Amino acid sequence: MNEEIRSVLEGIKDGTVSIDEAVLKLKQSPFEDIGFAKVDLHRKLRQGACEVIYGAGKTSAQIRAIIDTMMENGQKNILITRLSEDAFGQLADIENIDFYKEASIAIVGEKPAADGIGKIVVATGGTSDIPVAEEAAITAEFLGNEVTRIYDVGVAGLHRLLSRLDDIMTATVIIAIAGMEGALASVIGGMASCPVIAVPTSVGYGASFEGLSALLSMLNSCASGVSVVNIDNGFGAGYMASMINHVSIPGKE
Amino acid sequence: MNEEIRSVLEGIKDGTVSIDEAVLKLKQSPFEDIGFAKVDLHRKLRQGACEVIYGAGKTSAQIRAIIDTMMENGQKNILITRLSEDAFGQLADIENIDFYKEASIAIVGEKPAADGIGKIVVATGGTSDIPVAEEAAITAEFLGNEVTRIYDVGVAGLHRLLSRLDDIMTATVIIAIAGMEGALASVIGGMASCPVIAVPTSVGYGASFEGLSALLSMLNSCASGVSVVNIDNGFGAGYMASMINHVSIPGKE
Amino acid sequence: MNEEIRSVLEGIKDGTVSIDEAVLKLKQSPFEDIGFAKVDLHRKLRQGACEVIYGAGKTSAQIRAIIDTMMENGQKNILITRLSEDAFGQLADIENIDFYKEASIAIVGEKPAADGIGKIVVATGGTSDIPVAEEAAITAEFLGNEVTRIYDVGVAGLHRLLSRLDDIMTATVIIAIAGMEGALASVIGGMASCPVIAVPTSVGYGASFEGLSALLSMLNSCASGVSVVNIDNGFGAGYMASMINHVSIPGKE
Amino acid sequence: MNEEIRSVLEGIKDGTVSIDEAVLKLKQSPFEDIGFAKVDLHRKLRQGACEVIYGAGKTSAQIRAIIDTMMENGQKNILITRLSEDAFGQLADIENIDFYKEASIAIVGEKPAADGIGKIVVATGGTSDIPVAEEAAITAEFLGNEVTRIYDVGVAGLHRLLSRLDDIMTATVIIAIAGMEGALASVIGGMASCPVIAVPTSVGYGASFEGLSALLSMLNSCASGVSVVNIDNGFGAGYMASMINHVSIPGKE
Amino acid sequence: MNEEIRSVLEGIKDGTVSIDEAVLKLKQSPFEDIGFAKVDLHRKLRQGACEVIYGAGKTSAQIRAIIDTMMENGQKNILITRLSEDAFGQLADIENIDFYKEASIAIVGEKPAADGIGKIVVATGGTSDIPVAEEAAITAEFLGNEVTRIYDVGVAGLHRLLSRLDDIMTATVIIAIAGMEGALASVIGGMASCPVIAVPTSVGYGASFEGLSALLSMLNSCASGVSVVNIDNGFGAGYMASMINHVSIPGKE
Amino acid sequence: MNEEIRSVLEGIKDGTVSIDEAVLKLKQSPFEDIGFAKVDLHRKLRQGACEVIYGAGKTSAQIRAIIDTMMENGQKNILITRLSEDAFGQLADIENIDFYKEASIAIVGEKPAADGIGKIVVATGGTSDIPVAEEAAITAEFLGNEVTRIYDVGVAGLHRLLSRLDDIMTATVIIAIAGMEGALASVIGGMASCPVIAVPTSVGYGASFEGLSALLSMLNSCASGVSVVNIDNGFGAGYMASMINHVSIPGKE
Amino acid sequence: MNEEIRSVLEGIKDGTVSIDEAVLKLKQSPFEDIGFAKVDLHRKLRQGACEVIYGAGKTSAQIRAIIDTMMENGQKNILITRLSEDAFGQLADIENIDFYKEASIAIVGEKPAADGIGKIVVATGGTSDIPVAEEAAITAEFLGNEVTRIYDVGVAGLHRLLSRLDDIMTATVIIAIAGMEGALASVIGGMASCPVIAVPTSVGYGASFEGLSALLSMLNSCASGVSVVNIDNGFGAGYMASMINHVSIPGKE
Amino acid sequence: MNEEIRSVLEGIKDGTVSIDEAVLKLKQSPFEDIGFAKVDLHRKLRQGACEVIYGAGKTSAQIRAIIDTMMENGQKNILITRLSEDAFGQLADIENIDFYKEASIAIVGEKPAADGIGKIVVATGGTSDIPVAEEAAITAEFLGNEVTRIYDVGVAGLHRLLSRLDDIMTATVIIAIAGMEGALASVIGGMASCPVIAVPTSVGYGASFEGLSALLSMLNSCASGVSVVNIDNGFGAGYMASMINHVSIPGKE
Repeated sequence: MNEEIRSVLEGIKDGTVSIDEAVLKLKQSPFEDIGFAKVDLHRKLRQGACEVIYGAGKTSAQIRAIIDTMMENGQKNILITRLSEDAFGQLADIENIDFYKEASIAIVGEKPAADGIGKIVVATGGTSDIPVAEEAAITAEFLGNEVTRIYDVGVAGLHRLLSRLDDIMTATVIIAIAGMEGALASVIGGMASCPVIAVPTSVGYGASFEGLSALLSMLNSCASGVSVVNIDNGFGAGYMASMINHVSIPGKE
Repeated sequence: MNEEIRSVLEGIKDGTVSIDEAVLKLKQSPFEDIGFAKVDLHRKLRQGACEVIYGAGKTSAQIRAIIDTMMENGQKNILITRLSEDAFGQLADIENIDFYKEASIAIVGEKPAADGIGKIVVATGGTSDIPVAEEAAITAEFLGNEVTRIYDVGVAGLHRLLSRLDDIMTATVIIAIAGMEGALASVIGGMASCPVIAVPTSVGYGASFEGLSALLSMLNSCASGVSVVNIDNGFGAGYMASMINHVSIPGKE
Repeated sequence: MNEEIRSVLEGIKDGTVSIDEAVLKLKQSPFEDIGFAKVDLHRKLRQGACEVIYGAGKTSAQIRAIIDTMMENGQKNILITRLSEDAFGQLADIENIDFYKEASIAIVGEKPAADGIGKIVVATGGTSDIPVAEEAAITAEFLGNEVTRIYDVGVAGLHRLLSRLDDIMTATVIIAIAGMEGALASVIGGMASCPVIAVPTSVGYGASFEGLSALLSMLNSCASGVSVVNIDNGFGAGYMASMINHVSIPGKE
Repeated sequence: MNEEIRSVLEGIKDGTVSIDEAVLKLKQSPFEDIGFAKVDLHRKLRQGACEVIYGAGKTSAQIRAIIDTMMENGQKNILITRLSEDAFGQLADIENIDFYKEASIAIVGEKPAADGIGKIVVATGGTSDIPVAEEAAITAEFLGNEVTRIYDVGVAGLHRLLSRLDDIMTATVIIAIAGMEGALASVIGGMASCPVIAVPTSVGYGASFEGLSALLSMLNSCASGVSVVNIDNGFGAGYMASMINHVSIPGKE
Repeated sequence: MNEEIRSVLEGIKDGTVSIDEAVLKLKQSPFEDIGFAKVDLHRKLRQGACEVIYGAGKTSAQIRAIIDTMMENGQKNILITRLSEDAFGQLADIENIDFYKEASIAIVGEKPAADGIGKIVVATGGTSDIPVAEEAAITAEFLGNEVTRIYDVGVAGLHRLLSRLDDIMTATVIIAIAGMEGALASVIGGMASCPVIAVPTSVGYGASFEGLSALLSMLNSCASGVSVVNIDNGFGAGYMASMINHVSIPGKE
Repeated sequence: MNEEIRSVLEGIKDGTVSIDEAVLKLKQSPFEDIGFAKVDLHRKLRQGACEVIYGAGKTSAQIRAIIDTMMENGQKNILITRLSEDAFGQLADIENIDFYKEASIAIVGEKPAADGIGKIVVATGGTSDIPVAEEAAITAEFLGNEVTRIYDVGVAGLHRLLSRLDDIMTATVIIAIAGMEGALASVIGGMASCPVIAVPTSVGYGASFEGLSALLSMLNSCASGVSVVNIDNGFGAGYMASMINHVSIPGKE
Repeated sequence: MNEEIRSVLEGIKDGTVSIDEAVLKLKQSPFEDIGFAKVDLHRKLRQGACEVIYGAGKTSAQIRAIIDTMMENGQKNILITRLSEDAFGQLADIENIDFYKEASIAIVGEKPAADGIGKIVVATGGTSDIPVAEEAAITAEFLGNEVTRIYDVGVAGLHRLLSRLDDIMTATVIIAIAGMEGALASVIGGMASCPVIAVPTSVGYGASFEGLSALLSMLNSCASGVSVVNIDNGFGAGYMASMINHVSIPGKE
Repeated sequence: MNEEIRSVLEGIKDGTVSIDEAVLKLKQSPFEDIGFAKVDLHRKLRQGACEVIYGAGKTSAQIRAIIDTMMENGQKNILITRLSEDAFGQLADIENIDFYKEASIAIVGEKPAADGIGKIVVATGGTSDIPVAEEAAITAEFLGNEVTRIYDVGVAGLHRLLSRLDDIMTATVIIAIAGMEGALASVIGGMASCPVIAVPTSVGYGASFEGLSALLSMLNSCASGVSVVNIDNGFGAGYMASMINHVSIPGKE
């Protein structure tokens, strides 16, 4: 933003920008207002590459309108999360749109080639955690990461996890996804030498209290190098993991 | 209790017990009332063997009075839990009394020889869980069990736990004690082939919420064969483990 | 697991196992990966006898596939929990499958003869707790236990419970199941001389908060020898009770 | 209040009260303002008989000032609750003042003769609940009730409670006081044929969460005829029980 | 129960009862076991008068079976609570059955004449609280009480409540029912000179947390003489109020 | 109310009002009782202008009856909140009724001209908060306020908010509406120089716990001049904002 | 802030400000950095008049340093909240400093003359709420408001509140402060025709859960025109009330 | 760990390791058991460089013993967290030990030169969050990172944060630390293009519920690229940030 301020200021000095124009410009936000939403066109994702729409609670018509606005502004790849199969049905005619049913994600355009530092491992404790895991995995792939999935490796059968030790020891970032007691994050955190993003899920019943049990468990992990996102937030974990896998000095990219 | 009812009834039939005596007898409970407490003399512990006093919130004078009543009624061995070192100081003159500082337990008389089915393993996630573990271990020993301690084997350093695999695989009952994320119970539960009693501890800070995190985690264990006692309840775990290690058909003992 | 490690090591020494085979073998986990699940074939249940599938959240097709894999690997008896009547309808053609409607359990093959130390008593506070109780009872029967059911004996009508005193006094393990205030566990725990597994249920309304009331009540039981499993977790209680009723020194079985 | 309104109105009609006097009178509340407190002199307790001061958080000087105001207004008997022994020390010179240490209550003047319908039974689960019980019992005695105490009769040793069955079956109101799992209220509620006031206490540790466990348990009592007051609120229970033991048609007293 | 014990004992002495018969008799509980429920025939309600069935979670067939058992045992009047209109439809052919739709209550037989000490006032804060209030009111009427209803008198419009001051001042017991902030109990408790039973309701949204807000509010009432039942528990309040309105010395009834 | 008391009193003095009439008059509350509701006709809204009906949980017939009563008593404008589109369908024939679908509000009569001190700004963090915002905005307009809407200006894209700085700096009151982390209230509170009413919404998932997250966040705002209403309570915020925008010395209006 | 941006921009255009100076200026925040704190000198309070320091968790030395910085920058009046008597003792030598013990507030300089629209009423439910009330009252006075205190007027003794009806009906803003059940806010909200700021306090015990009870109660107030600040936040309420009492169109002040 | 297994296996094949030695070796964990703790000597920190001791709940003697064991095993630099000034006093004689009072951290040996990808920014909302921030900052420096501190930049005074925009835009990782409403994480997350680690603190009072408010707020952040550690867990944030700042493909380091 700093750069924009400086450029406006230089414009004023140069006389190419009037004061009223400058005030206006500073106010003009880098998004387009389409009534029910402000479509943000300057996200920190790689320019001209990809953009994200949170689909939950939006009508198909609203989503289509946002996609149109984005594409008119030059976005080539768009990720739509939390999209039901029904809602996708009404968007299926959009060119180059694909649906990832287990992840409840649609993508317009192509997933880019992986250009991260290393690979991201997405692990789950059980089978029921897979939808959250796929949301994380597809998000990470959409953002240019190689992803390895190791599912149903919960700590009650440690041998299942140990059989994938190679993957764990060679990951650049790991996303550990589990409901119930959420112990997977601690066990992986104790094994791995890379950052672990823990995702509690609402899988379970009774005293799991809709994911609270796994959430508290993960926040209290005795392993170092573990941080936590919201319950069932596969997208957030995938996004964070991608950021870590692309970490750099800003400006030197 | 049934036996007592029958014996009273037979006394009536035999004419050796009058009806008023019978009503009285049925009311006479198998404990002695010493004012501030009803000393229970017919506990299900082995007869003439051992008795338990919960020391927290009782004065030394009250504890001494209860001990006296018990001994007068033929109890030979008495366990006093949650006893501070200061409180013990005022009881130290009692004959045959010993203090286990880390467990905050005093024992009057002798720990009996171990007569359980097998051995009990007491495991902790960290060093700070040791006081709870010692409460469990001393309780179990007092109730006639062989106890193996494996401390500071939390899941963040799995190799520490794996190095004690022999103990885990040969236990008859395991007590798994951990604060923070409480994952130890699930990992041990997944390894062992015996019942696991999980004890959440209040060790931790922030979102451990005084042991709530470990409690929920243990209740939601994905491993089968795990049940849970109250936060920091080492005594309860030791008692339960001893019951399991002495399990039998009542009456056929 | 130790035994397996040793046998692999001996194979290497004997020259019958190459190092690469050994690494592979140690990694080869005792389960079969069928995509959406890792079917665990070395569970601690008695070999060749019985296996468990948690049915909730799995499609009939997935359950059928897991059953097939298990049977191909020699499992003779399989327990499927949390199975709706509808879901069972699509599995009803499987040979030797039976449905226990109240327990929402299906069993493939036979319930084995009871071979535990004694009998397990399953008690409930009310009529609404029966589904959880049946889940516990059928599980225990499937795992080789004799089960006595005493239902609707809540503490508000103590005479109902006292009328079953004989059952309570002769049990080897008791499963006490109750919602609302969950007092049944404490009252039975105070009467019985055997271990009590308490199961809070979500029965109730208002300040029962979906079973939280009964859960806290049971965790705080003033009776010794009571431990607790998750809300509505009949399977867990039946499994734990069976373990206790079969307790032994591992290896000396 | 109605009576006062009518009398003011009649005074106006009679000309004995001016309109301004009337407005003033309606505003003049039946209490005296002594700065830091409004001393309420028309409480619904029997007129000229007794008055209550909640001592917690008031200085001895403030309490003394309130007592003085009350006595100047003709109160003969005053109950001061939640009064520490230290605070009482500074009030000990007041004429006719007595301190009930276990209840943390002081009384100025005499406890009246019991004039209720029947007797009030105060029962506790354990020894640690006695301070709350004494607060209830002394309050009830101060308000003109006969009180029978049955302490340390928790449900884990049912015979202790059954030995006092006579007291329970002949009470007019019962106050059931317990911490931890609070089951006492349900068991007594199931036995007794009179109203039961349940008082959860903060006795316990871990998952008792400062009395929450007992509170929820009592609110969910499966016994009819049980209602609940705040955690540790012995005074409230004693007051409510006294109201019930003096129940009548207002105006026909 | 004491009386029964004595009579059995005397039978033994007289030789009219054998010991085995006696043991049996003491075990024979005063209820009939109809499989899915133990129908309690010795409830403390007035003999031969009335009995209660909690309808929620029971099928019409089960309810009909319980009614039949009760009537065969001489019950003349039966109250069925939490009964949906649909469920009632399948019971409508039972002789002398009436449905109170707003209360979701059916009554078999007649409401008895009111025979309490005075009248019970049932008050609600809002219109949405009426179903809970009707459950309380019909229950109280069924148990022999005169009931006055004052609905929609919440504290935000104090004049509505003040307009019913006569009813409040002449009640023998008041049931104060409110959701949201639950202040009605405190305001009525401050006005009335009789016991107040407070019923929090789940009416509200957001931070009412399904009745938690009103529940906590009522438990913390600054007015004396207020006790609380479970959220939405109209039956419990009506039952408790009836007990208070019929209070007496047991045995002297 | 004072004025009315005085006028009744003067009537008595003048002899124009009898004492019984006076008692009656004081009891006659300024509302009309139509059975299921007490229609309040003297609300503090501007006389003859507007009245509010909370539509949730009322049938169309009940709402129509309340509207009729109000209009017969001279109300010209009526606001009905929480009204579903279906329910409105059955009221659509009422003269001069309009439906605001996004706000779930119907208005009978006209929105008055804005007569407040300044303008009210209604801001939301996201698109999903708009229904709550519209409830607030329409309420404020109905009560005579000019409203400026700035939607979808959440803090994760600060430039969107900064682009509306003019509106924020010139508001008389601001309503800040947000779910999830609720940070909007603090950021606006730090920018603006006018009172801010914060409305947490139930928008979010997982650890938003139905709005609890935003509620706590807003209550803990580090900005001064922020107060909070219930989760999703757009009406309450609009009403409060209107009161502030019309603030005056009562009586000097 | 807008004004400053514009003036910087004009400076650039005029050539009186270089671009680097401009960037610097925009960055130069209107506060002074004194190491451990950034002293904010452009608060929205009236210029040159008053400033606030939150004293909790700051050493006397730190507070003194902040005061010095403020006074050097021309602040004449400074409010220090949450200041213990001890901490004040070490600041007592500062010129023109006064301590308000009950409010735990110190003021440097003079309280200004009241210049608000009307008067602010500060009401409390009990005596124990007075410290919070004084924090609110002194804050409001410091910010130029006339304050009327009506303390100990809790709803359990409604006549105490009614006796101050005049004050309530003539207030411009009311601050309603209560712990326990927090009903005061609703009752005052129902009476008054001005905005009410509700302050829950942590006064109470047991199920008041440190103010949670009053907080939820106030958020769920059935009265319109009530908004809520944090538990015990007297300062926040006083500040908000002052803003409302000084409400105006920004720029037209 | 894989490497070690392979090397043991090769030793067997080579005949240089006997089977019993192998079993033993696999069991020999890479730590030294010193009784009360298992000192872990193979942590994933850079070899021979640095090691961490969690000081809370350990005596000075215990800490000294652990340090000794570590140094004997070749550790050159040791970090001790949560160390009180008093406890440090008893360790001050250790060679090359330094104490960072605000962070409650001691370091034995030297902080290494920064060798991360870029710099880590540590930001706090207020002054009271500084101890947590210093724990994070010193930890990060100890692990080889350049750290920039920007303290007291809470969102209520946005200009303070904007003045440090350069630091935020050029960071490789940001640690955002805040109590109360925790909005700082969202605002920074919305500005920055690097991963943000959010640390809720227990700073605040009332409805901050010991950090719960900030924790929930941060978990629900509407900004992408934010993950959360436990309340007050500065060490965990510093450790995680360092891992991110040193991210690489394992094995290619």
